[in-house]
Amino acid sequence: MKYELYYWPSIQGRGEYVRLALEEAGADYVDVARGAKGVAAMMRMMQEPGGTPPFAPPFLKAGKLVIGQTANILFYLGGRHGLAPKAEGPRLWVHQLQLTITDLVVEIHDTHHPLGPSLYYEDQKAPAKRRTEEFWKERVTKFTGYFERLLRDGGAAYLTGRRLTYVDLSLFQIVAGLRYAFPQRMRAFERKVPRLIGLHDRIAARPNIKAYLASERRIPFNEDGIFRQYKALDL
Amino acid sequence: MKYELYYWPSIQGRGEYVRLALEEAGADYVDVARGAKGVAAMMRMMQEPGGTPPFAPPFLKAGKLVIGQTANILFYLGGRHGLAPKAEGPRLWVHQLQLTITDLVVEIHDTHHPLGPSLYYEDQKAPAKRRTEEFWKERVTKFTGYFERLLRDGGAAYLTGRRLTYVDLSLFQIVAGLRYAFPQRMRAFERKVPRLIGLHDRIAARPNIKAYLASERRIPFNEDGIFRQYKALDL
Repeated sequence: MKYELYYWPSIQGRGEYVRLALEEAGADYVDVARGAKGVAAMMRMMQEPGGTPPFAPPFLKAGKLVIGQTANILFYLGGRHGLAPKAEGPRLWVHQLQLTITDLVVEIHDTHHPLGPSLYYEDQKAPAKRRTEEFWKERVTKFTGYFERLLRDGGAAYLTGRRLTYVDLSLFQIVAGLRYAFPQRMRAFERKVPRLIGLHDRIAARPNIKAYLASERRIPFNEDGIFRQYKALDL
Repeated sequence: MKYELYYWPSIQGRGEYVRLALEEAGADYVDVARGAKGVAAMMRMMQEPGGTPPFAPPFLKAGKLVIGQTANILFYLGGRHGLAPKAEGPRLWVHQLQLTITDLVVEIHDTHHPLGPSLYYEDQKAPAKRRTEEFWKERVTKFTGYFERLLRDGGAAYLTGRRLTYVDLSLFQIVAGLRYAFPQRMRAFERKVPRLIGLHDRIAARPNIKAYLASERRIPFNEDGIFRQYKALDL
């Protein structure tokens, strides 16, 4: 089965967590909206009456299923491609960790959009500065400290043990994104989460991920996505 | 099996979506943190080394499982108590809808906390006013319009058909909460989402929910939760 991924074609955004899972799995997929008329097709699927129209991208077409919400897509893919345990308890645990990453991603987005997604960054620079200060003072430490502690207590190569899950791929993206958006802050911060940095490096070195990152399929970070490099927020 | 729910004892908050599901199901549960030393027990579970410590409340102890993240808990309960379909596709669809509600809940919380959860509302009143304006101009319409459209297209008593799911219970809470936090705005807005209001009323009239709402187990809305009544934000 060839998966169809629907997501905005010019950003990594929330679609990237799905792309990383599909790439690591070596799954057969097409990134629909990056093709001609792809965005129109994506919009049409969200507007279609009846069925299961997603609220927003990303969503994945898998045969007759249309699955929306990043963590939900990963839950589905994890079971099918060996990127999550099969037993109920461990599977829910991995999903729970992904939902915690989802919460972190919202907070990262809100550093540059504290007044909401419908206004431009340029219209909210002062509150963005304040939110970013709070984010770095309180929230980054809390979230990354949690994952660092799980890595320490687990004592294994990956977050939940010896086997990689989609959560590890998402944590790679968190580290890569924070490095892009906040290069100065991260330079000072990384020593506090050495295991998380080590995990990032192990993921980056995996053959399928390495090939993906070097390919044109990996959209470069830019200032339309979740992780944005604004000098005013990095000082 | 008696479930143990762990959540802050003085607010509805995110725990309320779980409480509503447990109550509708008539499940045997204890709201641990509302008992003596309950908060201490909750904090201890989050700090315990090893195992599967949740990042934050709510979490549910179900036998040996400890399940965190609201939508994840509902996913688990849904399958066990007839509050979600059993087949994979419909089950993921219901979960997807719950995750969309999760996104909405974050945005509702951010109306009074645009600069982040670690500052008081009193320290962010001006940005809260701006974020709330944007929320009512753009976001409420988009989210509730989506659910209204699903109810219209489905043409059934509940969001995904003739059978109630945990998503219906959560939408009840959204309507009840918006009414509490923004009484004036909601009075003008409700006519735009008549099916959602009808759903709210049907849920409120269900025997188990009705009994719950009239009991002391239902914590009143207050200004420490997600839905807060601030006059300055309702005008």
